[in-house]
Amino acid sequence: MSGGAGRMSGVRDVCVVGLGLIGGSVLRAAAAAGRVVWGATASAADADAARADGFDVVDTAEAVRRARERDALVVVAVPLPAVEDVLRVVPDGVRLTDVVSVKGPVAELVARVAPGARYVGGHPMAGTSASGWQAGTAELFRGAAWVVTAEDGTDLDVLSDVLELALATGAHVVPTTAGEHDAAVARISHLPHVLAAVLASVGADGGPLALALAAGSFGEGTRVAGSRPELVRAMCEGNRSALLDAVDDALGRLGAARGSLASTGGLAKTIEAGHAARRALVDQQAAELTDLTVDLTSPQALEALRALGSRGGRIVGLNGSTALARTS
Amino acid sequence: MSGGAGRMSGVRDVCVVGLGLIGGSVLRAAAAAGRVVWGATASAADADAARADGFDVVDTAEAVRRARERDALVVVAVPLPAVEDVLRVVPDGVRLTDVVSVKGPVAELVARVAPGARYVGGHPMAGTSASGWQAGTAELFRGAAWVVTAEDGTDLDVLSDVLELALATGAHVVPTTAGEHDAAVARISHLPHVLAAVLASVGADGGPLALALAAGSFGEGTRVAGSRPELVRAMCEGNRSALLDAVDDALGRLGAARGSLASTGGLAKTIEAGHAARRALVDQQAAELTDLTVDLTSPQALEALRALGSRGGRIVGLNGSTALARTS
Repeated sequence: MSGGAGRMSGVRDVCVVGLGLIGGSVLRAAAAAGRVVWGATASAADADAARADGFDVVDTAEAVRRARERDALVVVAVPLPAVEDVLRVVPDGVRLTDVVSVKGPVAELVARVAPGARYVGGHPMAGTSASGWQAGTAELFRGAAWVVTAEDGTDLDVLSDVLELALATGAHVVPTTAGEHDAAVARISHLPHVLAAVLASVGADGGPLALALAAGSFGEGTRVAGSRPELVRAMCEGNRSALLDAVDDALGRLGAARGSLASTGGLAKTIEAGHAARRALVDQQAAELTDLTVDLTSPQALEALRALGSRGGRIVGLNGSTALARTS
Repeated sequence: MSGGAGRMSGVRDVCVVGLGLIGGSVLRAAAAAGRVVWGATASAADADAARADGFDVVDTAEAVRRARERDALVVVAVPLPAVEDVLRVVPDGVRLTDVVSVKGPVAELVARVAPGARYVGGHPMAGTSASGWQAGTAELFRGAAWVVTAEDGTDLDVLSDVLELALATGAHVVPTTAGEHDAAVARISHLPHVLAAVLASVGADGGPLALALAAGSFGEGTRVAGSRPELVRAMCEGNRSALLDAVDDALGRLGAARGSLASTGGLAKTIEAGHAARRALVDQQAAELTDLTVDLTSPQALEALRALGSRGGRIVGLNGSTALARTS
């Protein structure tokens, strides 16, 4: 790998733009891992709180200028609608990643607004229903999946930076493409929010009697409908195209269940397919894993990383330029 | 109230037909509450296991004959498809309730097959994913809602029997009609199973990558898809008509979300309605309750009971012929 000036494995400086729950947790976790860190945020409250906790917070233009100067990794941790403004001040050649929950739209923005940046997309699959600097912790990412995009042409040196940072926070890394990430999270993260909202509404339409009888299945199936609506909307609406596909799949399957129940009275296909699918989830989570390695200097590295992700595998360590992975 | 021979509050004998998870738990809980109990079951395994635990298990015809003789309460605790065979041997005049998860179809069967029985429908909203005698416990109903049907013409003396039994097991009682019960559970119990199956299938269609990224919302939203398919089918298919209405509501709401996302890119209405609905659930569960009483000898008793249920209220005690209730 062609390391930047002063590059030593595991010690690249980290600049985080956006100091809410996720960005604030990245800043803390990177500092806890021994990195030199600084941050920037448009929120005066978050800036004051981060400074009060001893962190170096400067304005965004100064933060990214310093990052270019020190060849640091910039982590964009603002909501999707605010990403473009940050990208406008990013210098050419800067090492850049992000933690936004949708990857295709961010990649498009980077290509349009900051084409000179050395960008690799990221998405740590962690969060709580709280928000803001105060809600963050250095431990937020421990055990979580952190998606890293590995497109044809991706800068493997920056990808290694993101990998090191993610591993340093205690996450494991799932490599994939922006498109596959967006399709997957539409199915397993955004559709669950839409269905929870629909279920909650249909239940509440049953009035106080229905709610008085609600037990486990309704409580669990609607819990995420209690999340802040503006956050859920930003997440779901930001992944519009992939979410439409997932909603169409759900509509098709629910319509088929309706048709079968109305015509034959049976729900065998729906219930049995759902049971098999749930078992696939449980089996995959319980599967014995085997170790494998990916040589990040190989010409097939990006292809190997994507293959690992599509098999449900993950990177759990880095030894020089060799990624240590586990897969079922 | 016109009590039966030997009637003393709280000491009516109990005969349970069907000794699986629910029936076996009713038998144990009634015995633990000091009642004379006996049971019957078509399952030799459940019969042997119940006898081994010291319970009196006889054949079904003998069990219900003895119930008529002693003016006991018969509790039908077999799956819906087996209810008709039990009803065929029920003597005229017997005090009869059931614990089947759907009430309209059972009431229709009773009217057709055992019109001479003094029937009041019941449904304890409790269960686990396990089944059979061995899975039952005397504590299964503690804190659970136990629905009791209060139709025009319902025998208030038998309703009081069911109420006493339910309260003796530690449950609270929600009075309503068979139709309202079936509509409510379609929304808060059966639809959640159908949506969980749909969500699990759409997620698994995303392959190992999607399942590797699945976190809280998908795990929770699909958990009940892990229940035994034959039990879920029996429950959902048994409530076909009401479930069709609930599925149609869900299809309408999901279709509206799809249309809005496709046309304007927005999900405000869906997500905000879902959030308000979830809040209604949480608020109702956290609401301060006020006490009220229902005089079961009053000509308006059935109406008062139904009104209590539609307000989300419940009966928590019985003092002679006065039901002690709580409502928000």
